[in-house]
Amino acid sequence: MYERFVKENVYNDTYEFLKGVESMGQENLEKKLAGEEAVKYVEDGMVLGLGTGSTVFYTIKKLAQVIKEKQWTITAVSTSHATTELAESLGIKISSLNDVPSIDLTIDGADEVDGDFQGIKGGGGALLFEKIVATASKRNIWVVDSRKKVDTLGQFPLPVEVLPFGHAHTLRKMEEAGLNPKIRMKDGQLYYTDSQNLIFDLHLNQIKDTASLGAWLNSMPGVIEHGLFIEIVDKVIVAKEEEVRTYDRP
Amino acid sequence: MYERFVKENVYNDTYEFLKGVESMGQENLEKKLAGEEAVKYVEDGMVLGLGTGSTVFYTIKKLAQVIKEKQWTITAVSTSHATTELAESLGIKISSLNDVPSIDLTIDGADEVDGDFQGIKGGGGALLFEKIVATASKRNIWVVDSRKKVDTLGQFPLPVEVLPFGHAHTLRKMEEAGLNPKIRMKDGQLYYTDSQNLIFDLHLNQIKDTASLGAWLNSMPGVIEHGLFIEIVDKVIVAKEEEVRTYDRP
Repeated sequence: MYERFVKENVYNDTYEFLKGVESMGQENLEKKLAGEEAVKYVEDGMVLGLGTGSTVFYTIKKLAQVIKEKQWTITAVSTSHATTELAESLGIKISSLNDVPSIDLTIDGADEVDGDFQGIKGGGGALLFEKIVATASKRNIWVVDSRKKVDTLGQFPLPVEVLPFGHAHTLRKMEEAGLNPKIRMKDGQLYYTDSQNLIFDLHLNQIKDTASLGAWLNSMPGVIEHGLFIEIVDKVIVAKEEEVRTYDRP
Repeated sequence: MYERFVKENVYNDTYEFLKGVESMGQENLEKKLAGEEAVKYVEDGMVLGLGTGSTVFYTIKKLAQVIKEKQWTITAVSTSHATTELAESLGIKISSLNDVPSIDLTIDGADEVDGDFQGIKGGGGALLFEKIVATASKRNIWVVDSRKKVDTLGQFPLPVEVLPFGHAHTLRKMEEAGLNPKIRMKDGQLYYTDSQNLIFDLHLNQIKDTASLGAWLNSMPGVIEHGLFIEIVDKVIVAKEEEVRTYDRP
């Protein structure tokens, strides 16, 4: 099953995070612990949102196992082609987001999360669907390894999804604004998202005012969405070595 | 040439505005007068942005004629597949927006324009590319017939381009916000833009605070772009009966 998935998958970063699984180092152990912990918050009958990435990978695997064992009925929606393929290969049926009235709980990863429950997402390129699913969800849980917990956002480059039409002008405007955008490449080619857009990674080092930056990016006509997730997550599960800690937004 | 274009064109609203041309009523006379007037601001060697719609249609036709007569070298970028086809059928070569450093002048139509030079665009479904081209332009001219000039924006439903993924949730949120969204249909099917997104037309009747509404719409993850064009146009050319008036933004 696992081999088949690796072979058939042609999307995005999935192969990347699966490669990581081969060697279960400290980081992957943390991802596994955090990812599996989130399944404790899933209940029979829920409509679930499934995120994308190397930590949610373990959530989805564990979830599939629990669904089978307990014979639960779960309705799941996906945030990427890669997650859809993974979930379906494990026997979890994926519904269209448009076909569910709302989502009870979404479990996703994050590239960075700070003490104010603000995060950066989109390292895996799925930020657009992830943000839409997150904002359609009653509750959001993020699962992260200890490296993702930071004091200030911005060390991780901020991904921004950009329309290919006129992207050279969008790039120039971001450069002029001092945002240090780099067009994401993959294997020497432009990287395209599931929606056939580009990703600009903004090398900011430190983001002081997330709200202002987010609003400015949103106001740019060529910007489809950015990876700042503010006031979205309710619970963050962090694994550090063999300890799992859960933080609830006040 | 003209017949061929009508036959071959399969895009968006183009056929609609061409049908209107068959009978040159008062409204079409105004469109023709305003549309052609804008060509006076074009100079040899310019990089031009070409809008989309039933008034710019006359700009493009006139422009093609002037380019031929005066043997001008014009670099043109387009805001829709329909405009690309029209322009190329008339001998105007279209360049990619990414291949020009900037645009000297863009000529486009508008569905409504108020006394503060704010406008609503997107009736023809091309608002996304139109806004990207407009914001990459040093100067913007709008050409409109007299019906488009209004005291307050909003009588014309505000078009919003929405990602199909999760659009049912985006619709619900707009309904909850009292924005009266209607999904645009064409021939009994969902209408898709050149970027394969949907259009929601917001029946607002009156828009009091354009900046707030624009920012709110931009902040919605499922919204790609909205049809409020604020602080974009520099010159508005309005034809009323046989009189053409030109208004410059202070």
